[in-house]
Amino acid sequence: MILLTSDTETKPTQAMRQAIANAEVGDEQKGEDPTVNKLLERVADLLGKEAALFFACGTICNFVSIKTHTRPADVVLAEHMSHIIRAECGGAALSSGVLMEPIASERGIFTIDAVEQALGRVTTAPYLYSAIPRLLCVEQSHNFAGGSVWQLPELREVCDFSRQKGLATHMDGARLLNAVVATQTTAKDFANCVDSVWIDFTKGLGAPMGAVLAGTREFISEARRYKHMFGGAMRQAGIVAAGCLYALDHHVERLQEDHDSASYLARRLSEIEGVTVRDTKPDTNIVFFDVSKLGLNKGMFLTLLQEHGVKMGAVGQSIRAVTHLDVSRSDIDFAVDTVAKVTKFLGSAVIKAERQDIYKLENVVNFAISSR
Amino acid sequence: MILLTSDTETKPTQAMRQAIANAEVGDEQKGEDPTVNKLLERVADLLGKEAALFFACGTICNFVSIKTHTRPADVVLAEHMSHIIRAECGGAALSSGVLMEPIASERGIFTIDAVEQALGRVTTAPYLYSAIPRLLCVEQSHNFAGGSVWQLPELREVCDFSRQKGLATHMDGARLLNAVVATQTTAKDFANCVDSVWIDFTKGLGAPMGAVLAGTREFISEARRYKHMFGGAMRQAGIVAAGCLYALDHHVERLQEDHDSASYLARRLSEIEGVTVRDTKPDTNIVFFDVSKLGLNKGMFLTLLQEHGVKMGAVGQSIRAVTHLDVSRSDIDFAVDTVAKVTKFLGSAVIKAERQDIYKLENVVNFAISSR
Amino acid sequence: MILLTSDTETKPTQAMRQAIANAEVGDEQKGEDPTVNKLLERVADLLGKEAALFFACGTICNFVSIKTHTRPADVVLAEHMSHIIRAECGGAALSSGVLMEPIASERGIFTIDAVEQALGRVTTAPYLYSAIPRLLCVEQSHNFAGGSVWQLPELREVCDFSRQKGLATHMDGARLLNAVVATQTTAKDFANCVDSVWIDFTKGLGAPMGAVLAGTREFISEARRYKHMFGGAMRQAGIVAAGCLYALDHHVERLQEDHDSASYLARRLSEIEGVTVRDTKPDTNIVFFDVSKLGLNKGMFLTLLQEHGVKMGAVGQSIRAVTHLDVSRSDIDFAVDTVAKVTKFLGSAVIKAERQDIYKLENVVNFAISSR
Amino acid sequence: MILLTSDTETKPTQAMRQAIANAEVGDEQKGEDPTVNKLLERVADLLGKEAALFFACGTICNFVSIKTHTRPADVVLAEHMSHIIRAECGGAALSSGVLMEPIASERGIFTIDAVEQALGRVTTAPYLYSAIPRLLCVEQSHNFAGGSVWQLPELREVCDFSRQKGLATHMDGARLLNAVVATQTTAKDFANCVDSVWIDFTKGLGAPMGAVLAGTREFISEARRYKHMFGGAMRQAGIVAAGCLYALDHHVERLQEDHDSASYLARRLSEIEGVTVRDTKPDTNIVFFDVSKLGLNKGMFLTLLQEHGVKMGAVGQSIRAVTHLDVSRSDIDFAVDTVAKVTKFLGSAVIKAERQDIYKLENVVNFAISSR
Repeated sequence: MILLTSDTETKPTQAMRQAIANAEVGDEQKGEDPTVNKLLERVADLLGKEAALFFACGTICNFVSIKTHTRPADVVLAEHMSHIIRAECGGAALSSGVLMEPIASERGIFTIDAVEQALGRVTTAPYLYSAIPRLLCVEQSHNFAGGSVWQLPELREVCDFSRQKGLATHMDGARLLNAVVATQTTAKDFANCVDSVWIDFTKGLGAPMGAVLAGTREFISEARRYKHMFGGAMRQAGIVAAGCLYALDHHVERLQEDHDSASYLARRLSEIEGVTVRDTKPDTNIVFFDVSKLGLNKGMFLTLLQEHGVKMGAVGQSIRAVTHLDVSRSDIDFAVDTVAKVTKFLGSAVIKAERQDIYKLENVVNFAISSR
Repeated sequence: MILLTSDTETKPTQAMRQAIANAEVGDEQKGEDPTVNKLLERVADLLGKEAALFFACGTICNFVSIKTHTRPADVVLAEHMSHIIRAECGGAALSSGVLMEPIASERGIFTIDAVEQALGRVTTAPYLYSAIPRLLCVEQSHNFAGGSVWQLPELREVCDFSRQKGLATHMDGARLLNAVVATQTTAKDFANCVDSVWIDFTKGLGAPMGAVLAGTREFISEARRYKHMFGGAMRQAGIVAAGCLYALDHHVERLQEDHDSASYLARRLSEIEGVTVRDTKPDTNIVFFDVSKLGLNKGMFLTLLQEHGVKMGAVGQSIRAVTHLDVSRSDIDFAVDTVAKVTKFLGSAVIKAERQDIYKLENVVNFAISSR
Repeated sequence: MILLTSDTETKPTQAMRQAIANAEVGDEQKGEDPTVNKLLERVADLLGKEAALFFACGTICNFVSIKTHTRPADVVLAEHMSHIIRAECGGAALSSGVLMEPIASERGIFTIDAVEQALGRVTTAPYLYSAIPRLLCVEQSHNFAGGSVWQLPELREVCDFSRQKGLATHMDGARLLNAVVATQTTAKDFANCVDSVWIDFTKGLGAPMGAVLAGTREFISEARRYKHMFGGAMRQAGIVAAGCLYALDHHVERLQEDHDSASYLARRLSEIEGVTVRDTKPDTNIVFFDVSKLGLNKGMFLTLLQEHGVKMGAVGQSIRAVTHLDVSRSDIDFAVDTVAKVTKFLGSAVIKAERQDIYKLENVVNFAISSR
Repeated sequence: MILLTSDTETKPTQAMRQAIANAEVGDEQKGEDPTVNKLLERVADLLGKEAALFFACGTICNFVSIKTHTRPADVVLAEHMSHIIRAECGGAALSSGVLMEPIASERGIFTIDAVEQALGRVTTAPYLYSAIPRLLCVEQSHNFAGGSVWQLPELREVCDFSRQKGLATHMDGARLLNAVVATQTTAKDFANCVDSVWIDFTKGLGAPMGAVLAGTREFISEARRYKHMFGGAMRQAGIVAAGCLYALDHHVERLQEDHDSASYLARRLSEIEGVTVRDTKPDTNIVFFDVSKLGLNKGMFLTLLQEHGVKMGAVGQSIRAVTHLDVSRSDIDFAVDTVAKVTKFLGSAVIKAERQDIYKLENVVNFAISSR
């Protein structure tokens, strides 16, 4: 099965597994795991921040950061399709009691004007009645906008403006290193725009678990407490951190290959009749496309695709394919061929089904499968 | 001072004060205040609901309703400039831990399409990751959109659709009776579209305090507990409820006068040079206008206006004037004249100030005042 | 019906009603209600605090104070049967996310030792794991302990100690003025022990609604925002505040009568066979007693009592009778006679019922009533 | 350094590391990690529950369980020194908004009477005012009570009673398997008493990370969503789960050795002058003792102990020593000798310091160290 659902699907390599098996460990929650500590130093240095904190996964980095930056009833401004608003089960509302104010954007990247308009909306009513805007979040690269990348000047401008307006700034940098590789900008330069930032090791970097949040010493000290309070403290986490360290050493530069694969995939897909690719030259490793033009239902399409050995996912009304460590160029070729085959096959099945008045989706799929 | 800041500025009449003084009272939080109980019956009947609950003010009706309809991390859909999102200090996020999903609208009134798009955004990510949409809120009439009114068919359509989608429905009916009078539709017909609804007695109805929330017996029973939990339980509240009963008896039909006054005000204001009226034929009793065309700062404008005996307020970048019980037609005339005078005076002051390089706002105001 | 259930049952007198009817009013939530403002000044002065805030009822004063003093996951220390822990529906946990640490006490009054032990429990685990103690609450007088009163030196000692330990201090002074009258200590002296304190006007003071919270200017400024956020802001609340002002002028000194009545009641009740009075010389206006010695069920007892024209309430396993403005000495006599009659009557009914194998409670009551 | 601070200090063995390195992995949060799934099946079977869920650590199992069983403002009853109340940073209050009602106990084990009293306290006020008791928690074995063990009949009795009272029941079974080994009762029998239960693999079982929560299919399905909402979802967690599976296969029966070591340690410590052992025959692997009898400060004592190669910890005013996988019998002997040496040495140092009027603690330690 070729897994293009997400770059989180990567599995640890043999060499990474060996690093994991050999990890020196201690009690992470007491700050005594040497491998975790080594990782934290490495990431703090990479991001140019005073201190860092280890987590088992990425979402909790957003939750803990929001909690640390805000108080209940504050407003968090974030791009309207950002992961923080759309893909974290409303967790920040539960644990921080914050309101989310969506910012309009072009492909996930927004301007000072958009921030100003969002602030204007939040402060429409007099102070006594309006909620207080406290935090601006950016997502680098932006997942649901197709792995789109903030260029350094536009990021800096928006963050500087937000700071002037009294907002704290936070970066969901789950795929920051993809942006780093894609723009040839240092992680430090990007991270320098914001007060807090985290990177995820389970995406393109290929580690099985792990994320690191960085910020000022004071921020991390308060975040450490919230990490505990949210149930995120761990024990001999060096086992996991060793995989992250290995990834930092060996899997950063190769992200370029994923970006090249994604561009190749996007271009090839755009050549298939009935397939609409959102961006034929994606910034990083995420490709969005759409098969609705031919009247194809995305659920049917994905089911048949999977039956033929290719797994992709749906985000809203679109199909998302993500390239990563475990996807070779020939895997991409196979995936493209399969999309072409399924599209064509399903397209004609839909037509036939319509002729025979088979309206229900399941019937169409059954019909399509049976008539293969 | 002519108070056009809000219809909440109304003061109880002598007759209402007498009703208040004579109120029979008991312990409201035990359900034993006879005047409160009479009011609850009246309002439940007016709104065609099984049961009702008394509150000291309106905002807590929204909070308690949201809490009753949702669980933490659920999504509440509401028009993007609605009072629930913009003018309640983020309180619902604090007490209910909900996310707010703004719905796009034309003048506060939105369509099935807009709800569907909002639902689409909320459910972009797969179930495992997305927050659960649980409640739709409508505001009748819509305050920040200029007292605009939902017509019954458009309200019914949106609410029916939302119910089909599994959403509970709630109406912030702070000014529902204005809509009733403006459309000649019964309150019951409007209320029938939603699961819960409240009306406020401190706005055009002219009572000093009081709001009543209505819904099913089960809803009100749970809401009663949350009312306590939010600190909203009262004692001999009949004192206050008596004013509300008086308002129901005497102040509903006269809301038409406020609407007529607002239309008159809007038209007269629109004739003043430099004044841009948002809607020259407002649906109810709220007029929005703008003096920025002449380069006038709204703060300066409001300050001078008040100095000349007319108080209005700012909502976002606009000026809001609300007509009510305590504002006569001649008050409106005086207000219009004052706006004209201040606009003209301030307009020329700005020009003079610019000539003399007086940039700071305070200086302009001081200059304007001193040169009167 | 003689209402001894609570001193919250008091109804406004004619003179108070007149004061209410004549109140000068404005918009409370904007700080523009002259009667509210006058009341706030009076109470701030009475309590020796910089600033004060008006509320429709008392419980929300506790909620807003806890919210203002704490952050989520902090620990609030309070006497283990205090109103804050036992009679506010868990509301503080909902809105502030705090843990409550119960303090052991003698009749509601606790010592430095008890606070130290509570702090010791809270900080059993190392800092990394334990919740942070942030606020100490005292209740003056203590409702469920029988209206018991903190003497000034013991209160001062406990509060000073708590402040040294870094705790903020808050007084639930719902019946502070009862303690003032009972001890001939000034309200200012008591209030001076704590950072925040509120008094309730709906208890012995006899106003229909109203409570005032006081503290530093900074505290009240933050509390004002939370008041809004909790839905506690009001409009022409002067209507209600006028009753509170009247109560301050006319109903404080007379609290002594309620205390005398309570002592008289306690003594008389203790003379009835089968009645166990918890404290035959209550500090203020609350009497607890118990009829379980004769095998009487408190539910049956209260039902029959009410049938004979006397209403009392149950708190846990005890009966509570509270004296107040609307209860005369002859009412007390009538209540005592009724308790005697019902006790005697019910006692023999229970015996007869047992003889006839009537086990179910309802049957006993029915039997008792039918055999009258 | 001999680490007796906690059984969480265990480090993975070579064989466990190999199992980790070889783990087959998938995406845990989508339910697709085969090693995690194998572990969940194993634990569900071990505990006799329908379904199970994997977590990186134990505390979040408590948080998610409390959230799943309760709604904000509900009451959770738990032993007054339980981990849930004392050692989780108040996290449950933050995320679930619940009140904790402490239950009195003998060594962490409580009776029906104690539960009934706690329920009585919670329901002192009438329904309208009291918070709702919803969940009973037990801790097996009980950490801060010295690893004390619930016998099956006493556990069953308390849980059955609680269920009859309408409470859900939850077991913090961080060290359940210690209790299983100590009592020769099956895990299934203990788990059968409660609705939800979790076990921790990072304590005596010696895995680096991992905990598994089990319950009904419905409970786990809801818990899964909260896991996400709390930021606890993971990716290729099989890496970690492999260590847990290895522990289940190889490290359960050997817990008896830890218990034997603890008993040996307790007995040996009790022979040292000035050392007071809380329980000379501990139920499992936790020993509490106290050196205050000789006037020794626990901070000084622990510092010197560590300087001599033995690390223990403080819980409240006591010293805690926990035996585990990485502590041999000769390590215990060394630890005992070191305690004896330090006690004696420090004891005389304190006396000397007192003679020389060295009051401050640091001075005593410095003096003690310098005069070695």
